[in-house]
Amino acid sequence: MNALKFCLVILWLIQVKANTTCLPNDIHALILARGGSKLITYKNLVEIDGLSLLSRTIITIRKSNCFEHIWVSTDDEKIALEATKYGALVHNRPEKYALDETSSVESVKEFLEVHKYVQNFALFQCTSVFLREKYIKQAVSKFKSHDCVFAVKRSHNLRWKSVNGQVLADNFNMEARPRRQDWKGDMVEAGMFYFSKRNLAMKGLLQNEKCAVVEIKGEDGLEIDSYRDLDIARCIVNSNK
Amino acid sequence: MNALKFCLVILWLIQVKANTTCLPNDIHALILARGGSKLITYKNLVEIDGLSLLSRTIITIRKSNCFEHIWVSTDDEKIALEATKYGALVHNRPEKYALDETSSVESVKEFLEVHKYVQNFALFQCTSVFLREKYIKQAVSKFKSHDCVFAVKRSHNLRWKSVNGQVLADNFNMEARPRRQDWKGDMVEAGMFYFSKRNLAMKGLLQNEKCAVVEIKGEDGLEIDSYRDLDIARCIVNSNK
Repeated sequence: MNALKFCLVILWLIQVKANTTCLPNDIHALILARGGSKLITYKNLVEIDGLSLLSRTIITIRKSNCFEHIWVSTDDEKIALEATKYGALVHNRPEKYALDETSSVESVKEFLEVHKYVQNFALFQCTSVFLREKYIKQAVSKFKSHDCVFAVKRSHNLRWKSVNGQVLADNFNMEARPRRQDWKGDMVEAGMFYFSKRNLAMKGLLQNEKCAVVEIKGEDGLEIDSYRDLDIARCIVNSNK
Repeated sequence: MNALKFCLVILWLIQVKANTTCLPNDIHALILARGGSKLITYKNLVEIDGLSLLSRTIITIRKSNCFEHIWVSTDDEKIALEATKYGALVHNRPEKYALDETSSVESVKEFLEVHKYVQNFALFQCTSVFLREKYIKQAVSKFKSHDCVFAVKRSHNLRWKSVNGQVLADNFNMEARPRRQDWKGDMVEAGMFYFSKRNLAMKGLLQNEKCAVVEIKGEDGLEIDSYRDLDIARCIVNSNK
């Protein structure tokens, strides 16, 4: 019986270790943070409780201890300074890859063209302010056996569609509306992170049909797109103090 | 030219009037507000900026001037008192229609069984705290030519589905991800209100295929389901002061 208990404790310790540490790996964390941003000026540098969105993301990524390096790709000096201050490496992004129209994957490709040795990367969006170490660790673990890993959350939206002027139920039966507790909901992309590989990105993709997902809590899914989102994030951070 | 200007002013005034007043009608506003609530105790009475969710909803409905009466259907004395204080009529709901399992439409049917003269009703959920007069007026206007009207909002969620262990894009093409600005998004039910008719409700439905929708702003779509939602609503109300 004592031997059994001993084994259980060892198994538990192994599990705890797997959940709380990162084994050495060659993944590079990458944050795209350009100077121009349409809706919120210098969005990456706006502060919540005294820390910029950029620094918050870098701090959480650093704490996870899961990455070879943390890169910030930027066209802007102020952002580069903030990145360096929090221990990230700066990739100087040419202006033509920091336009409103530039897609994330184009910026990733530009980064990979310069840093030929990077095979595996994890793109983080610092607008997802409730990034947590545990999500990163789950993603790293799943990335070992998948081409790509990204964050999802559950949505319990009842969807409707317009068909020839009629409004019709899309994802449920009007005569037997699903109750929230009886329905897992839709799985939707959370935008928080995208773990992927060089060969995928060079094809212009962050995902393929061999991806795994990390499900984040709905309440961690807020993304900063507007000043109102920023107000909400500040409130949540303050109320969690 | 002056005659043209005069006509334009008249047309403008007619439009303003249509948007800002309600013609007399026989619609009864109905709020379901039971005493028991699972996640937040006495949810209908929790306050935001000194006003309960219930009173906020009654006040907005009253201001719209669109309804024959405003009813609050409740099994609870405290809620009945709050309803009366803000000028609503109270429908005493039997306890067996105020259980966790009771659906909204069952409670509506119970109300209609007692109030035989009510043919048209508008069910309001006081958890949708950003109800606005303009949405009510749009709904009343559309209800003239439809069996039912309800509130929707736009969702730009990229959905994924699990198929035989694979995670596959559901509502978009992985190789040509839609940009938010190029895509209207999904139309999803906002839960804010449901205008409907006696004959529909008696069949156990609030909607059929002859509904119209009122599209509300995404930022008005918050529904209070948790204490966190309540914190967020309080923050928004305070920041809008």
